[in-house]
Amino acid sequence: MRRAEELRELVEEHLSHVELTPTLGDLREALRYSLTGGKRIRAVLCLATCEAAGGEAEDALTAAAALELVQAFALVHDDLPALDDDPERRGRPSAHIAFGEGVALLAGDALLAEAFRLALEYEGGAVARELAGATLGMIGGQYRDITGDDADLAELHRLKTGRLFAASVGCGLWAARVPEAQQGPWRAFGDELGLLFQVVDDVLDGDGYAARLGVDDARELAQAAAGRARERLEAVPADTSVLAEIVDGLAVRTA
Amino acid sequence: MRRAEELRELVEEHLSHVELTPTLGDLREALRYSLTGGKRIRAVLCLATCEAAGGEAEDALTAAAALELVQAFALVHDDLPALDDDPERRGRPSAHIAFGEGVALLAGDALLAEAFRLALEYEGGAVARELAGATLGMIGGQYRDITGDDADLAELHRLKTGRLFAASVGCGLWAARVPEAQQGPWRAFGDELGLLFQVVDDVLDGDGYAARLGVDDARELAQAAAGRARERLEAVPADTSVLAEIVDGLAVRTA
Repeated sequence: MRRAEELRELVEEHLSHVELTPTLGDLREALRYSLTGGKRIRAVLCLATCEAAGGEAEDALTAAAALELVQAFALVHDDLPALDDDPERRGRPSAHIAFGEGVALLAGDALLAEAFRLALEYEGGAVARELAGATLGMIGGQYRDITGDDADLAELHRLKTGRLFAASVGCGLWAARVPEAQQGPWRAFGDELGLLFQVVDDVLDGDGYAARLGVDDARELAQAAAGRARERLEAVPADTSVLAEIVDGLAVRTA
Repeated sequence: MRRAEELRELVEEHLSHVELTPTLGDLREALRYSLTGGKRIRAVLCLATCEAAGGEAEDALTAAAALELVQAFALVHDDLPALDDDPERRGRPSAHIAFGEGVALLAGDALLAEAFRLALEYEGGAVARELAGATLGMIGGQYRDITGDDADLAELHRLKTGRLFAASVGCGLWAARVPEAQQGPWRAFGDELGLLFQVVDDVLDGDGYAARLGVDDARELAQAAAGRARERLEAVPADTSVLAEIVDGLAVRTA
């Protein structure tokens, strides 16, 4: 079983060679730019889930790439002036600063469509359905965010961040051909992981949960989510050591 | 076999009741607004193809709705200030005028994701793959358009308009369960129809082909495309009278 860092390198290598649709022409440069530099947490989670569930990480690589494309789509559009108006992303100029707003808008659209094209390489449509549901959840969460409907912060983040984490676990399960009836305990793990990621993110950025609860209480919430995630893993009848390593990594991350 | 106008009413009725994902919350209003008022040409083409190929139009309704959602997605994003900056659409304020730019951006994203969700209700993934390919073609065409890469106007329009017309025929064939090996002649028809639609559109708007060739030559090009579309239909071993009616309608339309 490969460690998380090995899986991350596998993803990085795969993403650097992923073929984008030729009819996009030079727009592909903006897609590649937007795909550069992520931590690949969702993709690694997908591969590690697939391996823990008895599959080969290689079978989940296309789904993992699709997840990273959906994440990149969301970041490119969220950074636009009409939404968060963020000039920087991953330490570099955002896509709309680097390429202009029109091209960034189209690049985001293309990242989402390419993600579905990749997900549809899997038979049966389950991987693509995971992406569609997660994408709609993310959009619903972002809509609540920009309209100030954040009374229920947990629900907002469950949509905006949690759904794609849950889908990452789900895609790994489908790639490993785990029947739906056996997916419950794995998915419960994915839900806790999404919350853990978001709370730590807010503590690092000083917003969201950290602003609402104070840093100390937010840290406690993160530790509780990490604890529940580990418990959920223990309920899964498999070697989940790499997934546990991912939980530990998310709980103590500083960037 | 139902006439085109009957099929249009069927689509309109279906679209007015199509269930959108609840987690989108009030954003669904912007989606419904953007779905209102279209001519439904692509949806009707999909249903008419399905019926001509021996299927029931009802079996193609979900695919037809998905095609209209993709078209609405493209219009909402193309109208944004970062692209065409168009304040009006279908005789009403564009989505970003009515709801603001941020909401319009998210509404476009949601329309595309909902389209895939609907397309994935069909088994086998072929309908969703049609949408993904067509969407990527449209984005590639729009990219050429905004970057001024219009030396090959036929290729630009084949991508920007033609691909979704071709996919409308394709989705109708999949809904009617026509095996891929028998789809060739039908698809050749769809390609000509996309060209016919675009040239007539340009004649009505005085741009594109009409600006490049002059109105008279553009009209001639449209008539030639209509003629080839009718010929292609004759090569199809089925009652294609409603599809021929669609060709005639597109050839003489004035709005």
